[in-house]
Amino acid sequence: MKINDTIKTMLNHRSIRKWKEEKVSDEILETLFNVANRTSTSIGMQTASIIRITDKEKRAQIAEITTQNYVNEAPEFWVFIADHFRNNQILEEANAEKNFSHDIDRFFSGVTDAALMAQNVANAIESLGMGFVFFGSVLNDPEKLVEILELPKYTMPVLGLGFGYPDQDPKIKPRMNYENRIFENKYKIYDNYHEIFKEYDKVMDTYYDLRNTKKTVGTFTEQAVQKYSSQQELRQKLIEVARMQGYDL
Amino acid sequence: MKINDTIKTMLNHRSIRKWKEEKVSDEILETLFNVANRTSTSIGMQTASIIRITDKEKRAQIAEITTQNYVNEAPEFWVFIADHFRNNQILEEANAEKNFSHDIDRFFSGVTDAALMAQNVANAIESLGMGFVFFGSVLNDPEKLVEILELPKYTMPVLGLGFGYPDQDPKIKPRMNYENRIFENKYKIYDNYHEIFKEYDKVMDTYYDLRNTKKTVGTFTEQAVQKYSSQQELRQKLIEVARMQGYDL
Repeated sequence: MKINDTIKTMLNHRSIRKWKEEKVSDEILETLFNVANRTSTSIGMQTASIIRITDKEKRAQIAEITTQNYVNEAPEFWVFIADHFRNNQILEEANAEKNFSHDIDRFFSGVTDAALMAQNVANAIESLGMGFVFFGSVLNDPEKLVEILELPKYTMPVLGLGFGYPDQDPKIKPRMNYENRIFENKYKIYDNYHEIFKEYDKVMDTYYDLRNTKKTVGTFTEQAVQKYSSQQELRQKLIEVARMQGYDL
Repeated sequence: MKINDTIKTMLNHRSIRKWKEEKVSDEILETLFNVANRTSTSIGMQTASIIRITDKEKRAQIAEITTQNYVNEAPEFWVFIADHFRNNQILEEANAEKNFSHDIDRFFSGVTDAALMAQNVANAIESLGMGFVFFGSVLNDPEKLVEILELPKYTMPVLGLGFGYPDQDPKIKPRMNYENRIFENKYKIYDNYHEIFKEYDKVMDTYYDLRNTKKTVGTFTEQAVQKYSSQQELRQKLIEVARMQGYDL
């Protein structure tokens, strides 16, 4: 493998869920804002935005949505959003808004823009010796989140990000072999995935997560069965809320 | 600002659309596969995969979808996909597939996983002195792309990525001020976006894109009106194709 500092940091990625009290300095925030702003964006339209949550009350409300209390404890907590509001206003001011179809294409590219931005910021965070965790769980109640963030039409929350200086040192969580995820020219289907993941299952079954150091997380195939056997009720409202936000899906 | 090598590279990001003939070495490919595999993933379920297109015929077909001929010329061309096929098979083998609802929640987290992975790989690429461009345009005909990549049920293409060693040195494309995209505690609505973007419009109007060095790209607000006034017909089929792929949307 070809290693440099950037890649070394990426290969050592672990989610961090416990941080020192030390604040993230204004100088670093400015750096991260610039990194976010410089991220690739579909057709140059810059359809991702960030809401940075410093208000304790709002944090508590979001923590409740995620059911993860450490949302309150993260020195920084940001929500990345797909954002076509800004550009829609431009078209309205130019009396061209009737041309703007807020269709699946726009929605999808806004979501992608927001996720790319989130990962770009995350990589910058780790390069500065900090640690982060993503919160997909901000979408446990998308309607409530839209309300808390006072999101206008044509915007949609995508992902939360908590970060700061790590106050824990978790082990790297094992991943499946990349051969099972990276294919050439066409998707490769295996006959028996329990067989394919036999070794990985063993490795995962000896991995202890810092969130519960008393027991292992279980094999990967066991986890898959367990995790996909429950549904997040309110998360089903995602499309409905996107429509409420003006997207024509 | 706080600068290190990782951040310097991020702040210098430009899309590269012309590459030297030099191949990407196996050593570097292995590095990038590992970086991809290490990317954050929703609930540890690793629901993103990659199809690397080395077949010239398939490349040509994808180039046709994107209408961008440089798809053929990229030393490497990858498509990132949301992938619940693998985990669905695990549940089928365990006779638990009736529990697996391929709902909007799963779809959305798969799409996010794929986009995070794409940006992570992109950052590694630039850190190694190479250059990339994303292709949202692979979704110009999602049904055709699914066919070309032979994607099974419960998978969905998200984003294309072309990369290699740069054979051009484009100027950095100016972005709006980050204050217009990054907000505190709630979305900030401005009265008049043409007013807000007055300076940025001037800057963009003096920026020459390498794709057409004879004329400037136009102001940002002009571009917005122009770009949002046309629709990609087949891209409207995205939800339809996701349903075809087994997602319950």
